Amino acid sequence: MANATALGDLLSTLLDRKLFPRRGGREGHLPDLCRKLLAETSEASGLQLAASILETYRQLPAEGRIAFYRFLNDDLDIDANEVARLASIYAEDPCPENFRNLSRASEPKRQDLFRRLNQAPGATAELVAMRADLLSQLAHAPELGRTDHDLVHLLRSWFNRGFLVLRQITWDTPASILERIIAYEAVHEIHTWDDLRRRLQPADRRCFAFFHPAMPDDPLIFVEVALTDGVPGSIQGVLSDNRTALPEEAVNTAVFYSISNCQAGLAGISFGNSLIKQVVRDLSRDLPGLKKFVTLSPIPGLSRWLAAEGLEAAQNDPTQLRRMAALYLLDAKKKDGRPLDPVARFHLANGATVHQIHSEADVSDKGIALSGGAMVNYLYDLSKIAQNSEAFGQKNEIAATTALRALARQAAKNRNAISGRPKVHRETDRPSPDVPDAGWDEEAAPPAAQDAS
Amino acid sequence: MANATALGDLLSTLLDRKLFPRRGGREGHLPDLCRKLLAETSEASGLQLAASILETYRQLPAEGRIAFYRFLNDDLDIDANEVARLASIYAEDPCPENFRNLSRASEPKRQDLFRRLNQAPGATAELVAMRADLLSQLAHAPELGRTDHDLVHLLRSWFNRGFLVLRQITWDTPASILERIIAYEAVHEIHTWDDLRRRLQPADRRCFAFFHPAMPDDPLIFVEVALTDGVPGSIQGVLSDNRTALPEEAVNTAVFYSISNCQAGLAGISFGNSLIKQVVRDLSRDLPGLKKFVTLSPIPGLSRWLAAEGLEAAQNDPTQLRRMAALYLLDAKKKDGRPLDPVARFHLANGATVHQIHSEADVSDKGIALSGGAMVNYLYDLSKIAQNSEAFGQKNEIAATTALRALARQAAKNRNAISGRPKVHRETDRPSPDVPDAGWDEEAAPPAAQDAS
Amino acid sequence: MANATALGDLLSTLLDRKLFPRRGGREGHLPDLCRKLLAETSEASGLQLAASILETYRQLPAEGRIAFYRFLNDDLDIDANEVARLASIYAEDPCPENFRNLSRASEPKRQDLFRRLNQAPGATAELVAMRADLLSQLAHAPELGRTDHDLVHLLRSWFNRGFLVLRQITWDTPASILERIIAYEAVHEIHTWDDLRRRLQPADRRCFAFFHPAMPDDPLIFVEVALTDGVPGSIQGVLSDNRTALPEEAVNTAVFYSISNCQAGLAGISFGNSLIKQVVRDLSRDLPGLKKFVTLSPIPGLSRWLAAEGLEAAQNDPTQLRRMAALYLLDAKKKDGRPLDPVARFHLANGATVHQIHSEADVSDKGIALSGGAMVNYLYDLSKIAQNSEAFGQKNEIAATTALRALARQAAKNRNAISGRPKVHRETDRPSPDVPDAGWDEEAAPPAAQDAS
Amino acid sequence: MANATALGDLLSTLLDRKLFPRRGGREGHLPDLCRKLLAETSEASGLQLAASILETYRQLPAEGRIAFYRFLNDDLDIDANEVARLASIYAEDPCPENFRNLSRASEPKRQDLFRRLNQAPGATAELVAMRADLLSQLAHAPELGRTDHDLVHLLRSWFNRGFLVLRQITWDTPASILERIIAYEAVHEIHTWDDLRRRLQPADRRCFAFFHPAMPDDPLIFVEVALTDGVPGSIQGVLSDNRTALPEEAVNTAVFYSISNCQAGLAGISFGNSLIKQVVRDLSRDLPGLKKFVTLSPIPGLSRWLAAEGLEAAQNDPTQLRRMAALYLLDAKKKDGRPLDPVARFHLANGATVHQIHSEADVSDKGIALSGGAMVNYLYDLSKIAQNSEAFGQKNEIAATTALRALARQAAKNRNAISGRPKVHRETDRPSPDVPDAGWDEEAAPPAAQDAS
Repeated sequence: MANATALGDLLSTLLDRKLFPRRGGREGHLPDLCRKLLAETSEASGLQLAASILETYRQLPAEGRIAFYRFLNDDLDIDANEVARLASIYAEDPCPENFRNLSRASEPKRQDLFRRLNQAPGATAELVAMRADLLSQLAHAPELGRTDHDLVHLLRSWFNRGFLVLRQITWDTPASILERIIAYEAVHEIHTWDDLRRRLQPADRRCFAFFHPAMPDDPLIFVEVALTDGVPGSIQGVLSDNRTALPEEAVNTAVFYSISNCQAGLAGISFGNSLIKQVVRDLSRDLPGLKKFVTLSPIPGLSRWLAAEGLEAAQNDPTQLRRMAALYLLDAKKKDGRPLDPVARFHLANGATVHQIHSEADVSDKGIALSGGAMVNYLYDLSKIAQNSEAFGQKNEIAATTALRALARQAAKNRNAISGRPKVHRETDRPSPDVPDAGWDEEAAPPAAQDAS
Repeated sequence: MANATALGDLLSTLLDRKLFPRRGGREGHLPDLCRKLLAETSEASGLQLAASILETYRQLPAEGRIAFYRFLNDDLDIDANEVARLASIYAEDPCPENFRNLSRASEPKRQDLFRRLNQAPGATAELVAMRADLLSQLAHAPELGRTDHDLVHLLRSWFNRGFLVLRQITWDTPASILERIIAYEAVHEIHTWDDLRRRLQPADRRCFAFFHPAMPDDPLIFVEVALTDGVPGSIQGVLSDNRTALPEEAVNTAVFYSISNCQAGLAGISFGNSLIKQVVRDLSRDLPGLKKFVTLSPIPGLSRWLAAEGLEAAQNDPTQLRRMAALYLLDAKKKDGRPLDPVARFHLANGATVHQIHSEADVSDKGIALSGGAMVNYLYDLSKIAQNSEAFGQKNEIAATTALRALARQAAKNRNAISGRPKVHRETDRPSPDVPDAGWDEEAAPPAAQDAS
Repeated sequence: MANATALGDLLSTLLDRKLFPRRGGREGHLPDLCRKLLAETSEASGLQLAASILETYRQLPAEGRIAFYRFLNDDLDIDANEVARLASIYAEDPCPENFRNLSRASEPKRQDLFRRLNQAPGATAELVAMRADLLSQLAHAPELGRTDHDLVHLLRSWFNRGFLVLRQITWDTPASILERIIAYEAVHEIHTWDDLRRRLQPADRRCFAFFHPAMPDDPLIFVEVALTDGVPGSIQGVLSDNRTALPEEAVNTAVFYSISNCQAGLAGISFGNSLIKQVVRDLSRDLPGLKKFVTLSPIPGLSRWLAAEGLEAAQNDPTQLRRMAALYLLDAKKKDGRPLDPVARFHLANGATVHQIHSEADVSDKGIALSGGAMVNYLYDLSKIAQNSEAFGQKNEIAATTALRALARQAAKNRNAISGRPKVHRETDRPSPDVPDAGWDEEAAPPAAQDAS
Repeated sequence: MANATALGDLLSTLLDRKLFPRRGGREGHLPDLCRKLLAETSEASGLQLAASILETYRQLPAEGRIAFYRFLNDDLDIDANEVARLASIYAEDPCPENFRNLSRASEPKRQDLFRRLNQAPGATAELVAMRADLLSQLAHAPELGRTDHDLVHLLRSWFNRGFLVLRQITWDTPASILERIIAYEAVHEIHTWDDLRRRLQPADRRCFAFFHPAMPDDPLIFVEVALTDGVPGSIQGVLSDNRTALPEEAVNTAVFYSISNCQAGLAGISFGNSLIKQVVRDLSRDLPGLKKFVTLSPIPGLSRWLAAEGLEAAQNDPTQLRRMAALYLLDAKKKDGRPLDPVARFHLANGATVHQIHSEADVSDKGIALSGGAMVNYLYDLSKIAQNSEAFGQKNEIAATTALRALARQAAKNRNAISGRPKVHRETDRPSPDVPDAGWDEEAAPPAAQDAS
């Protein structure tokens, strides 16, 4: 068995050398560079080494990257037996020395490596990109979940709310940031720069984003807001290209009509809740006339659920569609008792109330395909957010208006008339994380991200 | 025994309630608040709770703080038996699920608490201040070293080089920052604003500092630089208040004449090496005429060592003082084989060379008291830094000029003539961390900090 | 006759009241408001009054504006007899008191009015717009040239070079400024935001603009620069959308391929010379490898001149076209002895040398129409600029390379072969100001502007 | 006589050459350089020439400067006979051509010179300094008033309110600006940086300044504001160094306790009115609890007037002093009917009301010397400013409270009892411009400045 291991080591080393080609002899083998960095005591030399490693990594082909992840996952893991031993010692004598020994042993070396890599200029964005890449491998190599756990642990610490900066995005924002807004918008596509301008420049529009100081020109998440007179029931109305801006004195409602996460590599680290509440606070202060804060949100799982329930016919009748949407949002649940709809989960966890449902509210191809054109307003009532959030978190209780509950009851009565076949309550088995308005499909928020939430 | 424990718990709870008084009934007992924060799932509510905890902490009297640290240290520690159990399971089956379970169990809850506290506005500076306070307790309560280990672990991650920003400090810098420079200067005191101006405004003076984005108006470390023609041998000459600024074309040397760490709460997290090398790089780029980068550094342990060696008489003769200083820097060692002088350890670990020794170089009271007025230039020769640093790190080899080695040899010959009593090589038993020019006394860099270096 | 005048006054007053309708009774008749402003002693009330006047002016229909200009031109003119009287007094006794009296009398009240209007927020941009509008009236109402003279006198003083700020335009510049760059580009149209990005973002492209602090988001003039290896001979090559950026070490030439004036209201106030020289200075400092500074300029009058000379046939033969272009640039003159080509006049007055001519250099419809596709490089050789500029200014001497002079000589020999009809040297009678690469047609730089140059 | 003139010319030329020494042959004689600059057509060469002239001027000794001013005053004056001739022509035929000819002839060449000089970097500040120097010569050489008239005319145009920027001065302001605030404070001296900090850092203190974009680090005027609960009656109370800052909710009054003009070279160009009104507007918007805006102003002429009136005895009795101060402010007039007190003239012209008088309000040596320690509050009541300002401007009517008028009446009754000798109403013959709180003595605002106001 010792021999088998030795052979395995040899083969693995040879494979490694092929996938991590030496670059000009100067920089050496990637695992060697990493080990050298871990041993480096001079900050400045470490910084140079970190830059070399990231440069080498960037130029790796796909299979080289997987080999690198395996190196991180296996070679830079903890020694579990040593951890067990040190934990027993500490249990006997909890002195600081024993604690430090255990503490060091129980942190995989790859965490220290990530921290050292981060010293290089621009490294934070590269580590975020590395995680996006790693996430895309998890379906095929689930064992890499160990490395992902460590990386996301570190990223969550670095992207702590205390380090984020809220900035308003306007037509005066640098074009290099605006083109990212165009690219990242995931709910209602921004087709052109004129389209973007219509969402930023009018006096009754706002956009806010969180940034991290180490990635100052790349937003983490952003929300688009329309200031309106009353709660709107159509996204095409909100985004119309021949509207007149509403004067400030006529504004009484702020509509969050699009929230997009920007960084696939930060999946599972949630910024949306903080963003919405900060924006509610800032807008309240600046516009005393604002009385209501609502979303105009997609119902991404509605069509799929209607099909699963044999209720497709409801899509042909606006009234029935609104009723079935209410039923879906209030009654369709996952096995864990939480709502089936990922956007609903996001806003309800934040403490919002299901407020109003509109048919013919998103008549784009995408809107029709996902929800038969229906959309929903979630209401952020500051006086109820805390208790709603708690009731939902502890008892899965959904806050909804009386009218909306009535709609759902009517739907429950009518469903047999529509479907013809008996209800079979089945949870779809598709993975579905909690998300803001965008990113509710698997690509954008892969299964592994759920662990982190 | 169960009863005794129960009684102890009761007493401890009562004590806690006395030291953490409820503030208006609304915010509750500090440990309760912390437990509530650890359980909070809403980011926004967590943020408010974090702010309350920090506010409550700030108002605690000294004994209340110690009780709070004990709560962190004991109640929010790991369950070592559980860690041992999970480590054994993981050793058997290293699947991601088992890894995550072990990983969570082996991180003390106080780490999560610190991260959650950090979400509140301004929290980072408060956590740094909390560590400064905690450090001051370690001498009397060394068991708190466990909590210190966790806090410094997190701070080192947050104050990663990749997040630091180098800014030049000039006479155009906001006064609110400049007054901190005055307060933090720890090597050559800045007596007045005019004194400060003389170090910033002339064309042949520079000052650079590292900042963290979460503490944008509070420097972490700064270095003061004089641009000179040749290597200066007197700090009073450098700081003279009636000099004429040297024209840029006459400049060939950059002298780092003062480096000060600013944050006691970040003791053990080293920024000096990065700072010096970044400044060397920036100055080289901006001033192509620069040929030499040296320090003009104190020799803080010299007088004490001369006294211990019975060589006080050397202080009366400049030539002898220079020789003995050379001997001290090159030969006086700690038990671990590294130099006795903390400033020497700092610059030698960075890869500098002991370059030149000057007597009558700091004739201030402090300079006379510490080193009989002697100072030393450490040379930063970019072509030798890496190999010097490695030789020092691995073999405790000290880089020094030939002339300086000759001085030390002469000293070795002369010492009996001076002292009269036989040499007893003793290491002083005073703790002495590696430090840049300032902070070489125990107050500024307490013992616990050494663990972190 | 007195009666006729009185009647005229009456009619004129009635007409005035119709064209300057009272706004709500509060603000009154525009001339009255202006007179009130001229009499106002409180700065703050004056500021409010100024804002009202500009607001009223903005809402005037076209004919109302003309009436307003006539009011400025006639009612706020000087009293010439009084000026003559005071001048005679001053000639007798040049004491300060007499000087002040004459000085005040010889400045039309409208100048004081313009200065007072300028106190309102945003007024500077509005006065620039007012002049643009006024300029457009001059062809039909040349007597308004008096008011134009005063307004441009003031604008030239306010837009003094000492107040202008040079800013680089990059892809990080606010979109609100970039969209103006797109709109103002007058030489080689910017079709889309991607097109713009290709001129700003690559490492071998630059763009610089002058701004005035009172119009911080509206450029006055900008120049687009390509950094190249050698002098390029085709604008389509420079603007190609599938090039690879040149690495900095390969760059030896800076090509000014487009210079556009942005403000029609500042016609006759020249910024191009300062802009080019400032940019040459800044680029030289930042890119020591730069050896040559050239333009790639249109020859806007070439086709028209070829037609007038009966030399259209030259457009069919690249070689002939290059020769005729050389002849045109060196020999075709206005009555005042200066070159017929307005772009040539601009660069030659700046001290540039006619360097090289390229056929098939601008194959866009516009390029073909104006010059049969030919373009020219003007060379900015810093060591010759001053003497070139002086020789051109005093003796109309044109600096050109030997090769270019040879081309022109060949053209002179060949022209009869091409045209068939005898040369009739005629200056086109079209007005033609000196301009940088853009704005050489009458619309952009109306006749009145010439007075100001 | 022709010979005498020729001789004079010769002598004057020789004198000139002595006073304007050639600098290394390169730059030539200052008048020659100026004439060359006036003839220069290239902007860029002009810019260089302008820089040379200013450099040469800076190095002139005092007598050289006077010679330079004489050159500006005499050689670059208008040709009055030519102006008279062109004015007559224009009176006959007011065509634009004739207008332009007259317009050019009636502007002295020195104005064009000043504009051209201003193109050099930093020139604006140098021209402001030049005027300060010129003003200091006017007492001995009043004929230079012609040049001063032109220079102030231009500066007034350049320092137009529309170009000024209001910035708050805080403890975060660059030290280089703060040290100017310390130096420029002219009402209540700032003794140390701590003293300054007490006026900037507390939450109930504000400071605002106007800046010009061409002098971005040098304020033009600034005002210091205390936010208080009620109207304070003692400047020492306001500036006390052991106060507790008032919480925002307790603030109802903004006290302008010091207004200082900074630039002697801008004497006669008034910024104070605009500054106060802009600050009132901004504070009203930011602090809705503010109900009252008052000054706490010196009464600089009171002691002098009491002495002139034989009423010195009033200084020994607080009650009498308050009465006499009321009498002085309301009744003591200049020949032109305006108040004798220069600070009163400033605030009354702005539309303020004389509100309250306090004895023992400024017990500093200066306060006692100038006004026996009395101070006055002027009230800025936004609803009355316009009518007060108009009434004062047109009819010299002084707005005052009923109580204050009653005080003045009592004083009128009592004065004989105090003085013993009959009232002789005499205006002091000392020149006395209208000023804000500072600069009311002759040195700070010399006679010539009055012409400009």
